[in-house]
Amino acid sequence: MSNCPIEPLVHNAWYIAAWSHEVTEAPLARRLLGEDVVLFRDASGDAAILEDRCCHRAAPLSLGSVVGDGIQCGYHGMVFGRDGACIGNPGEEDDRGLYRVRSFPVVERQHFVWVWMGDPGLADQSAIIDYPFHEAGEEWPFQFGHYHYAANFMFVIDNLMDLTHLGYVHGSTIGGFPQSHVDATLETAATENGARFIRWMMASPPPPSFVAAAGFQGPVDRWSDFEYVAPGSVLQWGGALEVGRDATENRNQDGGVSLRLFHHATPESETSCHYFWSVANHNCPATTAAGKQLYKDIADAFMEDKTMIEAQQAAVLRNRERGLHYRRHDEAVALARRALQRMRVTEPRAAAAE
Amino acid sequence: MSNCPIEPLVHNAWYIAAWSHEVTEAPLARRLLGEDVVLFRDASGDAAILEDRCCHRAAPLSLGSVVGDGIQCGYHGMVFGRDGACIGNPGEEDDRGLYRVRSFPVVERQHFVWVWMGDPGLADQSAIIDYPFHEAGEEWPFQFGHYHYAANFMFVIDNLMDLTHLGYVHGSTIGGFPQSHVDATLETAATENGARFIRWMMASPPPPSFVAAAGFQGPVDRWSDFEYVAPGSVLQWGGALEVGRDATENRNQDGGVSLRLFHHATPESETSCHYFWSVANHNCPATTAAGKQLYKDIADAFMEDKTMIEAQQAAVLRNRERGLHYRRHDEAVALARRALQRMRVTEPRAAAAE
Amino acid sequence: MSNCPIEPLVHNAWYIAAWSHEVTEAPLARRLLGEDVVLFRDASGDAAILEDRCCHRAAPLSLGSVVGDGIQCGYHGMVFGRDGACIGNPGEEDDRGLYRVRSFPVVERQHFVWVWMGDPGLADQSAIIDYPFHEAGEEWPFQFGHYHYAANFMFVIDNLMDLTHLGYVHGSTIGGFPQSHVDATLETAATENGARFIRWMMASPPPPSFVAAAGFQGPVDRWSDFEYVAPGSVLQWGGALEVGRDATENRNQDGGVSLRLFHHATPESETSCHYFWSVANHNCPATTAAGKQLYKDIADAFMEDKTMIEAQQAAVLRNRERGLHYRRHDEAVALARRALQRMRVTEPRAAAAE
Repeated sequence: MSNCPIEPLVHNAWYIAAWSHEVTEAPLARRLLGEDVVLFRDASGDAAILEDRCCHRAAPLSLGSVVGDGIQCGYHGMVFGRDGACIGNPGEEDDRGLYRVRSFPVVERQHFVWVWMGDPGLADQSAIIDYPFHEAGEEWPFQFGHYHYAANFMFVIDNLMDLTHLGYVHGSTIGGFPQSHVDATLETAATENGARFIRWMMASPPPPSFVAAAGFQGPVDRWSDFEYVAPGSVLQWGGALEVGRDATENRNQDGGVSLRLFHHATPESETSCHYFWSVANHNCPATTAAGKQLYKDIADAFMEDKTMIEAQQAAVLRNRERGLHYRRHDEAVALARRALQRMRVTEPRAAAAE
Repeated sequence: MSNCPIEPLVHNAWYIAAWSHEVTEAPLARRLLGEDVVLFRDASGDAAILEDRCCHRAAPLSLGSVVGDGIQCGYHGMVFGRDGACIGNPGEEDDRGLYRVRSFPVVERQHFVWVWMGDPGLADQSAIIDYPFHEAGEEWPFQFGHYHYAANFMFVIDNLMDLTHLGYVHGSTIGGFPQSHVDATLETAATENGARFIRWMMASPPPPSFVAAAGFQGPVDRWSDFEYVAPGSVLQWGGALEVGRDATENRNQDGGVSLRLFHHATPESETSCHYFWSVANHNCPATTAAGKQLYKDIADAFMEDKTMIEAQQAAVLRNRERGLHYRRHDEAVALARRALQRMRVTEPRAAAAE
Repeated sequence: MSNCPIEPLVHNAWYIAAWSHEVTEAPLARRLLGEDVVLFRDASGDAAILEDRCCHRAAPLSLGSVVGDGIQCGYHGMVFGRDGACIGNPGEEDDRGLYRVRSFPVVERQHFVWVWMGDPGLADQSAIIDYPFHEAGEEWPFQFGHYHYAANFMFVIDNLMDLTHLGYVHGSTIGGFPQSHVDATLETAATENGARFIRWMMASPPPPSFVAAAGFQGPVDRWSDFEYVAPGSVLQWGGALEVGRDATENRNQDGGVSLRLFHHATPESETSCHYFWSVANHNCPATTAAGKQLYKDIADAFMEDKTMIEAQQAAVLRNRERGLHYRRHDEAVALARRALQRMRVTEPRAAAAE
């Protein structure tokens, strides 16, 4: 087995192709899992994803325009519907049946545009992650972002699943003291389709952004709860309550900080990815000073991650077959990699059995 | 047989290397058919094309300078004449006979500098296209251009040989109504070394630029006559006469519009080319407002083509073996491709037989 | 045997990795002989060179920082000492023994930081060139530079070993008359580990910079003495004395010009190198107008060389197997290439025998 830390792609899975607001009547070109696709919204308002290549002369459809129920190629005017069928062939309409471009299953839900880039017959919508925090209104105001990373998507996942990087990479933003991350209690476990860890920093000084948001007067019990769901998602719950409020028994109390983050890395290619993330801040509107500051801190921190992860990718590419080491703190990283590899090995059968 | 729409190069043929005015005493570096060459004009005023590599230490001759009857390398001073022979070897003149660089047959005629990049023994000047419109003085004032396209040269030819793209690519410039291009009558035929089509839009509204140039008061009979001559040339005759003047019987009448265009795509490599074009406007000086506007419209339209053709090439390169479709409107495109392929298959024998 | 003029690398040899002043507490990333390394100076003040890749997750150590006796990775905080051993492993200190990165032998001497990129067991410090002109105080004031060349290191050596390029490449700076370089007397010889030539231009007009520096009133006897020491060094002694002072018998006289140059080309890869150079000017401080002008002239001339050498490399890369010609003036060039090739063939044995 190869030592190469660049994970091959899993095709039979749902990935986030875009945020809902990114998909409009203006065609959007994007590369997903090595395929060039065009995303658009037709007259019905439904999102569609087609290969970004007209079957006639290979012109990118993203240079065309949406007309009624389809997208028209900007070279010679052929029109393709959401399912890829040719619905317009100027001057040769009777030949429409000869032409078709590839279409991809799309599900738009909870502000995400999910796509299935593998075998369409295996696309099971029930496998899409439910994320109610994007539909909870004022209780969970959220903000989001989309970054391009020149790195294999699993380096993004690795980074999230080992928080000991916080004190080094994010020393100047959200990091806090390196030692406190090392001293935290940590429980890690494999899940059916991923891995999960929960980390507690008991009776620890709250970071400044937490004080600003919740007005803490003394030490807090702080948690970081991360679940990786293969192939590309990480659901994070982080927060703190003042000492003495039994946080470990009940984290759903008012008067503290409670954040829900959704992370998703969609491969663009084996060596690059789209990183989609949202942060929902319990009862804390994005329009407040604390809400704005939190968003800025997180966005800045992700840029710090990007610098490190892209440098890591570049070093790995100089000798792809040279393996990495897993320290004891990498237990969740190793479990996540194993879950992905399991999914890759079993992907056609597991999906077909559903 | 490969489906790849990127046509391999035909070497034993004449190509345009430059416009005459581009070749001066200042050496010009250019890549033609995958070879790096240097173009210059020596003291005699004759144009020369040599490989752009000194045989001594491989320095590009284009970094040197023209001295008398040759070009002097800027590294150690060796001089090479138009035929590639070494005519100067500082400090070791008796060794001149040991050195030579490759030279290419050149014919300068009618403002074109033609080059033969294949076997010099097969270079037959009688195969060069005669283009009298560049020598017709005030009767055919002309203007010209030279663009670099990041695309296989045949995508430029394809584009010219299927005019149904006009309504889509050039909608905002010279395109007119898409439907009128589809409705035109079209006659297509193979020729000995290419393909030809003539298209008539009878009793149609003249485009604004035609009205400005010829003062048309009503509908016109309009023609587009295109001839591809393998491997790289397209000769175009376009124009219009008012309805009732028997345009189909005699296009050589005054009082209308008559344009002669010369298009030539010289491969730079398999995936890029030089596009040379000229437009001659019958009895309409380039200095008039109508002449200027026409030139600007055409130059703008060719930039629109460039955008589309380069995007097409990029899409093709992502999967070279995936074929293109030929619609019925592509008859001349298919004939042109076939003529080129015939030339490629037979090139050494046909040329040798002359 | 390949004709390719791009010389493969010799690994078992000392190369200049940096000037001393370039190596500080701020980690410096550099590629040497195809390896990415990090250079730094730890708390002891000693220079160190490690591979630029943490053994944990492959993050570049150059993104980290020097802490005490080692360099700390900026991703998860591991620390490595000058010998590559792990001396810090946050939260898992008992596992230090499991981790190590590659280190390279370093010798810092006479303002050079020398590195041995091959088998460390063969690194013999006695093979390092002694260069006393960097330790001679006011007698030999010197200035230095470091350029990046996109060229195989031997093209830099070739350039130095055939001075007939001076009249062409440096016509506008230090070149002088092409003919005078051709007319000079030249003695060339192979040495044990390189090649040497000495060139005399007897009773010749001194160049303006020499007149400015030494106040010559008439013609001079001028010498250029170059010794190549494989794989990467050239030691140059150039100067002039007025005619009648027996320069050929004794060049160590006051009242003339005497320059000592050290040139060194360290491969970055097979197709690029670092060019380190210094120029020492006998009894002429760098702060004088003549000293400044000399430095500027030389730095400008090396930029002219860079332009030509990089163009030469690009031409060679277009057809790597096409050989170069050696003119009679290339005798020292040919001897230098042969010395390098001899070193490459015998490198493991010769070194092992010491």
